[in-house]
Amino acid sequence: MKTLLVIGIGAGNPDYITIQAIKALNRCDVVFLMDKGPSKDSLIDLRRQLCERYITERPYRFVEAQTPERQRGDVDYQASVQALNRDKQQVFERLINQELAEGQTGAFLAWGDPALYDSTLRILQQILASGAAHFEYQVIPGITSVQALAAQHKVPLNRIGRSLEITTGRRLAAGQGGDADTQVVMLDAEDSYRQLRSQDLDIYWGAYLGTADEILISGRLDDVADEIRRVRLEARQAHGWIMDTYLLRKPED
Amino acid sequence: MKTLLVIGIGAGNPDYITIQAIKALNRCDVVFLMDKGPSKDSLIDLRRQLCERYITERPYRFVEAQTPERQRGDVDYQASVQALNRDKQQVFERLINQELAEGQTGAFLAWGDPALYDSTLRILQQILASGAAHFEYQVIPGITSVQALAAQHKVPLNRIGRSLEITTGRRLAAGQGGDADTQVVMLDAEDSYRQLRSQDLDIYWGAYLGTADEILISGRLDDVADEIRRVRLEARQAHGWIMDTYLLRKPED
Repeated sequence: MKTLLVIGIGAGNPDYITIQAIKALNRCDVVFLMDKGPSKDSLIDLRRQLCERYITERPYRFVEAQTPERQRGDVDYQASVQALNRDKQQVFERLINQELAEGQTGAFLAWGDPALYDSTLRILQQILASGAAHFEYQVIPGITSVQALAAQHKVPLNRIGRSLEITTGRRLAAGQGGDADTQVVMLDAEDSYRQLRSQDLDIYWGAYLGTADEILISGRLDDVADEIRRVRLEARQAHGWIMDTYLLRKPED
Repeated sequence: MKTLLVIGIGAGNPDYITIQAIKALNRCDVVFLMDKGPSKDSLIDLRRQLCERYITERPYRFVEAQTPERQRGDVDYQASVQALNRDKQQVFERLINQELAEGQTGAFLAWGDPALYDSTLRILQQILASGAAHFEYQVIPGITSVQALAAQHKVPLNRIGRSLEITTGRRLAAGQGGDADTQVVMLDAEDSYRQLRSQDLDIYWGAYLGTADEILISGRLDDVADEIRRVRLEARQAHGWIMDTYLLRKPED
């Protein structure tokens, strides 16, 4: 049997890695590095450095693979993600069948936690269901950017006895936000928080959380929305990419 | 100045601890252990063992303190939590003022992540606002039982492009669940999932997640609700306490 480990390596700070993840890395024969193109090179580098720092117990090798890009623009989001995942599935199948021998262990490294807005688990389950490859697999959780955001702003994610919704910028922009006391928004490429101005909300925003480039802005949304948009745009131009997230809620009574 | 570190140590598995948390522990002069009574002794032991295993770089001491219990029964939940937090605040003030010298660093260890259903941050902020003690503080995130649940069941927390609500058993029982695609329920002492039977939901339930005593049950809610209630009751009687959490959502189309 082949074994796959889907390892959450945390979001941003290399020190977010857990002892469980380090032990898992040290069981691996192969570490798969999924390359999302030149703008994300620094993320690949970070994964490579994590392995080089923490895999000390046995030899292993890296296998890099180009992952397909999601079709953007005027397409149905869910359909484009599903198409992307079908393409990814073929890449993953090839890696598992050709790069891993029987009895070997391979790792996929997930930014943050593999269970939160990451497709690796879903893809592996579809491969197993299709019978295109055979393997056992385990999941190792990691610190998410949601948790990094809360820690760096020193703000609880929930109020006493209240609920918390984790959602996407796309849903927020479409008015599909729920009625949870607190909303945490991920994957927002469109500054969707701007649409919630005049609703008396506080915002806690963070980009490149946990890294040396971290930026934090918080305050009344109406007061800081323009600043966040400007800083976000400048940072994205400077880095070539941005990963940011934010928390919205009404101020305490 | 005094420094306080609020350190998430993860939920259940000692290997959930992060390198960041280990580094933070190694900066401490004092580790505060908040004692919640004999039924939770094994949790105190686990914290003590974590420190003994990972604090290697300098001498430190434990300071144990009894934390007040929340008044249960027929009282307003929010009011009882606020009263509890006022009592806790006095305990924390005393610890910070009497057990920590200027220039020293103390740690409070939070089960899971300090930002999720944990009162430590809120209490420290109230102490600072009241001026009753002076200190700097930092927050170190940790793996939550929500993430342990998803990892052990190998189930994504969200569906593609959909949202996730983290809520309490109390809210679920009161019909205050939102319309998020997925609901994760914490702090449910009353088997509130039973009230959502006949709604065509899947449940992924876990207790003592990440520990040797872990129990996992999943399936169609209507099929497994009775089993979960029975297993939960037996486990709570056997251990004297239980920590469990669960995820609910409609099956995939």
